[in-house]
Amino acid sequence: MMKERKIIVYIATSADGYIARPDGNVDWLNRPRPADDYGMGAFYKSIDAIIWGRKTYEPLLQKFAAAKTKATARSKKPKAQSSGSRIKNYIFSRQPPETFPPGAEFVREPIKEFTRRLHSEAGKDIWMMGGAGIIGSFLDEGEIDEFMIHVIPIFIGDGIPLVQPRHRSIPLKLLSMKSWPDGVVLLHYAVRTQPESKSASKKDGRAKTNKKRQH
Amino acid sequence: MMKERKIIVYIATSADGYIARPDGNVDWLNRPRPADDYGMGAFYKSIDAIIWGRKTYEPLLQKFAAAKTKATARSKKPKAQSSGSRIKNYIFSRQPPETFPPGAEFVREPIKEFTRRLHSEAGKDIWMMGGAGIIGSFLDEGEIDEFMIHVIPIFIGDGIPLVQPRHRSIPLKLLSMKSWPDGVVLLHYAVRTQPESKSASKKDGRAKTNKKRQH
Repeated sequence: MMKERKIIVYIATSADGYIARPDGNVDWLNRPRPADDYGMGAFYKSIDAIIWGRKTYEPLLQKFAAAKTKATARSKKPKAQSSGSRIKNYIFSRQPPETFPPGAEFVREPIKEFTRRLHSEAGKDIWMMGGAGIIGSFLDEGEIDEFMIHVIPIFIGDGIPLVQPRHRSIPLKLLSMKSWPDGVVLLHYAVRTQPESKSASKKDGRAKTNKKRQH
Repeated sequence: MMKERKIIVYIATSADGYIARPDGNVDWLNRPRPADDYGMGAFYKSIDAIIWGRKTYEPLLQKFAAAKTKATARSKKPKAQSSGSRIKNYIFSRQPPETFPPGAEFVREPIKEFTRRLHSEAGKDIWMMGGAGIIGSFLDEGEIDEFMIHVIPIFIGDGIPLVQPRHRSIPLKLLSMKSWPDGVVLLHYAVRTQPESKSASKKDGRAKTNKKRQH
């Protein structure tokens, strides 16, 4: 049997739970990195695809467009600005741009159809890059398998949360934890998928969310 | 020399960084506890005072008032509804109630004056109970020494953050971490107190906060 490909959120948060400052700034992530780059190399080898929200992918797209303009002026082929040619990039967007890097695929289909397609193809695990909106959407559809959260030892006070806010009750299973000498901690969780309780808690979540909205 | 009393935030958060649901609900904290109650007993022995925000203390106050009414009807003395007689409770409030439990002291003085008073008295460490507002105020005055954060393996999706939101850059030092078989993780941090960089980052934080407010 083929090993099931997992969709894994691999991300850094501040110790107060934000992935970026309110304007998207991640200045606080600029820090000397240990030799193993917090395990990034090993993780990167374990995946062959990345899922992006449109806004999170935007900077790469702009770099590509700029490189293309420059290359056209010189009549050269634009260099791929993707994450390496062996990596497939899936970008969720309702309005795909006219030009985009090789290795990029813009996705408009519903999440469930998309993940069914992913799981039907042989491949390695898939990195869910974020942002918070797409992580929330995938999580609420039950389509995130694991979270690998690197907790940076700093409070930034305010910012964009790891997952788009919405009433939830999603139990996690701690798979492992690890720390580095500089105080970065990796918390590796599996999303608990108990079919019956999962749908029950989803219903529960919706009911409570609706109740909240009446206030 | 007398050992300096530390002010320690000892608190539980969800894995997505909230201390309570938006309405204050902590249903998700109701879980079977391990024999050592996540180290609570040992911590409780190490403190002899608790700092509360008024809203966080309110439920205890209501219990006391109810017990007092009942006791007066029976001509009995009300039982102390505090956290044990050896514990001093400091509650920050601009409007102290008329009656309150023994062991409670309502505090109106500025944070710095209060902590100077605390440090001038011999005693054990002090538990900063919260909520987010008072934690934020003490943190921004440089008056929190440590955070002991128990990360519960659940996403609740939305709620009250650990610290009242405000632009910050407060580096932490990881003192230790620990996990329990049920997936609860304790992250124990010291707030890094480097006198020069601390005041610099405070200024920096204020400047950026003001910049944000212009948007």
